[in-house]
Amino acid sequence: MESAAPSGTRLAGISIDRDSSVPLYQQLESGLRSALRAATFAAGGRLPAIQELAAKLQVSRNTVRRAYQHLAADGLLEGTTRSGFCVRPGLCALGAPEEPKPETSAQPAPRSAGLASLAVEFNRCSALDQIDLERLRADGPPRPFRPAFPDSNEFPLKRWEALRAKVLKERSAELLQQCDTFGYGPLRQAIANRLRGARGVACTAEQVIISAGAQQALHLVAETLLSPGDAVGMEEPGSYRAKAAFLHAGARMLPLLVDEEGVMAPEARRLHPPAMVYVTPGSQFPLGVKLSLARRAALIEFARDTGAWIIEDDCAGEFSYSGQALASLQGEDESGRVLYLGTTGTTLFPALEIAYLVAPPSLLDRFSKTKELLGAQPCAIHQATLARFIGEGYLNEHVQRMNGLYYQRLQALAQSVDSELDEFIELEPAEAGLHAVGWLKRGVDEQAVTHCAAAAGVELPVLSNFGRTALMRPGVVFGFASFSEKQIRRAAKKLGSALRSKAVSSVARPGLLGRLMGRA
Amino acid sequence: MESAAPSGTRLAGISIDRDSSVPLYQQLESGLRSALRAATFAAGGRLPAIQELAAKLQVSRNTVRRAYQHLAADGLLEGTTRSGFCVRPGLCALGAPEEPKPETSAQPAPRSAGLASLAVEFNRCSALDQIDLERLRADGPPRPFRPAFPDSNEFPLKRWEALRAKVLKERSAELLQQCDTFGYGPLRQAIANRLRGARGVACTAEQVIISAGAQQALHLVAETLLSPGDAVGMEEPGSYRAKAAFLHAGARMLPLLVDEEGVMAPEARRLHPPAMVYVTPGSQFPLGVKLSLARRAALIEFARDTGAWIIEDDCAGEFSYSGQALASLQGEDESGRVLYLGTTGTTLFPALEIAYLVAPPSLLDRFSKTKELLGAQPCAIHQATLARFIGEGYLNEHVQRMNGLYYQRLQALAQSVDSELDEFIELEPAEAGLHAVGWLKRGVDEQAVTHCAAAAGVELPVLSNFGRTALMRPGVVFGFASFSEKQIRRAAKKLGSALRSKAVSSVARPGLLGRLMGRA
Repeated sequence: MESAAPSGTRLAGISIDRDSSVPLYQQLESGLRSALRAATFAAGGRLPAIQELAAKLQVSRNTVRRAYQHLAADGLLEGTTRSGFCVRPGLCALGAPEEPKPETSAQPAPRSAGLASLAVEFNRCSALDQIDLERLRADGPPRPFRPAFPDSNEFPLKRWEALRAKVLKERSAELLQQCDTFGYGPLRQAIANRLRGARGVACTAEQVIISAGAQQALHLVAETLLSPGDAVGMEEPGSYRAKAAFLHAGARMLPLLVDEEGVMAPEARRLHPPAMVYVTPGSQFPLGVKLSLARRAALIEFARDTGAWIIEDDCAGEFSYSGQALASLQGEDESGRVLYLGTTGTTLFPALEIAYLVAPPSLLDRFSKTKELLGAQPCAIHQATLARFIGEGYLNEHVQRMNGLYYQRLQALAQSVDSELDEFIELEPAEAGLHAVGWLKRGVDEQAVTHCAAAAGVELPVLSNFGRTALMRPGVVFGFASFSEKQIRRAAKKLGSALRSKAVSSVARPGLLGRLMGRA
Repeated sequence: MESAAPSGTRLAGISIDRDSSVPLYQQLESGLRSALRAATFAAGGRLPAIQELAAKLQVSRNTVRRAYQHLAADGLLEGTTRSGFCVRPGLCALGAPEEPKPETSAQPAPRSAGLASLAVEFNRCSALDQIDLERLRADGPPRPFRPAFPDSNEFPLKRWEALRAKVLKERSAELLQQCDTFGYGPLRQAIANRLRGARGVACTAEQVIISAGAQQALHLVAETLLSPGDAVGMEEPGSYRAKAAFLHAGARMLPLLVDEEGVMAPEARRLHPPAMVYVTPGSQFPLGVKLSLARRAALIEFARDTGAWIIEDDCAGEFSYSGQALASLQGEDESGRVLYLGTTGTTLFPALEIAYLVAPPSLLDRFSKTKELLGAQPCAIHQATLARFIGEGYLNEHVQRMNGLYYQRLQALAQSVDSELDEFIELEPAEAGLHAVGWLKRGVDEQAVTHCAAAAGVELPVLSNFGRTALMRPGVVFGFASFSEKQIRRAAKKLGSALRSKAVSSVARPGLLGRLMGRA
């Protein structure tokens, strides 16, 4: 579809496909980008007013507004939704960035555009300033539906304590000392053995690095492989904790699109590839989709060809509700570019804080230094107990049992959403992981849902908490694993009542967003 | 309460609060310190007799005696309980130490000298390249005389496990979840209480940040307060693990001279002060000296005037063999520039990996972000057990018992060096900590000692491992705390034999260093 802007500028190349899974505003944004790159607009030239373009393209004004705002956030446009938008003066001098345009975080400022790894000015204070503490952690004891938690009440604590007593009796002198740099030898061996079998990871015990939890593993990766200014590709929406770890190391984030096949490799960036691509192929966080076989192959090929590192976060990939759990990406990579990350924080209990990174042999020397510098070795007694727990098959047994239990809870959630929240939310059937996405139905306002959830004492993070591109269809995230069926039902009921009582008034006095999103 | 000393000097500002949890002798000591700092006493001036002051303040003579002895141990007073105490002559003259020469590390290159916080090019790979992994950690099980280890065989493991069972029984559901950002509340409270009493740290529980070991605490400090290019002042010789943590963050190291009074503040750098000064005032690592009162005052004044942060590493300061352990530097700082660091790795057992940082309130927001980003929270079960262990007085009891035991071992080491190594090494009487320095005698070659130690199966790090010691007599470091008297004697004997068989040739063909240092 082509349209002439009122100013006479032709909006070439903007095609809107209503059957596409790509949200309309993204299609529009992408078309506008191409137009800007092709210098269709003069620098300083005015873009069509929001209302006019919306009418012309037969999309909502909100769609146009979002696309404009995105381009303005990228520094391509200037202006406000009130005053209207112009092409940023001097834009043409910037040359043509590749597609997709990298999102350059405000800090650190790259000295020149487009280079993957360039020295930049890096200031700790401003790096910390851009981190949002509220999004890093949920406070207080977990309530339904806080995502990403296992049910630790189901953890076989007695068995664990018995194994602990055993290993302490056998080797207390050794276990009161610090372990080797990469962790307790028998634990590294037990994990390597298990990962080969249960997750198809190709590794020896020498490649297994024990870390104090998944967040430390991410930090370890950042502190080993990233310099300030390096680009890091990451799913958007995605894990804010991971993003924050990379931002703290001074990385520039390159958001990668996610659809029902999972994340797309940044093919347009082959000439200037990111230093690293962080992905959650087993169960995309937070959308929950599994990465398709074609996309897996594309990612691995991209890494092989460009030399980018792939960080495969498999922290929720152990639980699968549709057929077999997919084997790891790492196991399919033959060029040694994938680092695999798993944790006991989702399979056993969070306080244990033992995770494991499987690194290619070429990186072990560098990791041994950062590992020593970061400190924080998990207690050797715990490591030895875990080694025994895994070696005797209890971890596999527990994961299997939890998989069954979590599946039941997911069913309970699906039924509850169906019976209590049907007017507002449509549950996406989760294939894997510890949470499910619920899409807001037409006319249901994201903010109203947030307020009702808070009023009902329910934790219900909205998808847009997990990144900009979450502006697909608005949605929410239901963590279901750590709550009993009864808790799930009760929380859904409370939420339903709150929404219904609010919904009336929301129709009577619709908010701006409600009005814009509603297609009556 | 004010009182006039018999000499006519008024003891202003000494107030005794009988309802306070701070022991009376500490209150008195603190008041006397202020008086001495304020130069209320003339140098050489006589202090009130113990009996008189006790009567005046209505406290026991023992209280006054302890306070005086403490101040004498700090080098502030001279005298004995029998003869009475005077202000140490020359105390007031200790104002301006000589200017240390700044050492600029090869990497990262500062753009201009002297600026505390300037942007530099920072590359992770080259930062890691300059770290020497061999110096970061000792491999294999500890052998005599590896320094800086406590004797974990003496740790009351049964009592610990009993407390663990108790806390698990009482609150397992809570303890399987992750703690709050800064750690388990009751542990932070227990540590704050203990540090106020045992180490004179001025803090509330809110200021206590639990970290996963001392190395993580250092890394946490670096990742919170340092930008690449910032200067960090540090004792030389000093802890390589600390230095490496700062180098990894891109810091430029500013070595600070150490003499028998401890480290000197970088007075010459007042105009361009380092961002941070890292010190070990309780027991300088590795020389073992306590920081004198005058130097303490100078450091605090420097930080107050320049805005530099002081990191007080007190990890070995709990053990003292000459009078009382010195109170913390942090407790004397009234301008909120000192961060205090302590650990259970030296008082309990290394594998526990629980350390604690006391930060000024002004920094807590920044630390809460880095703490979340670094991850690696020590297991909540351990934290709760430790809270109970401290709360019931077992930590103080254990430290006291170990102090006695380590003192005996130090005596055994002194005797062994005397009887077995007298021709080669002169032991410096250690005042505190877990190791003692041995100075090489004239004509004894450092390298020859290293070779003989290796041949005898003895670990004996040379002082020059801990930084440039060109201005110093060559020496070695004897860790004595974690080895039995028998092990110490046997190792000294072996080393003596090895040295004697080698020594003949070393006298016949002295090395360059041997010739230069030898004063025939």
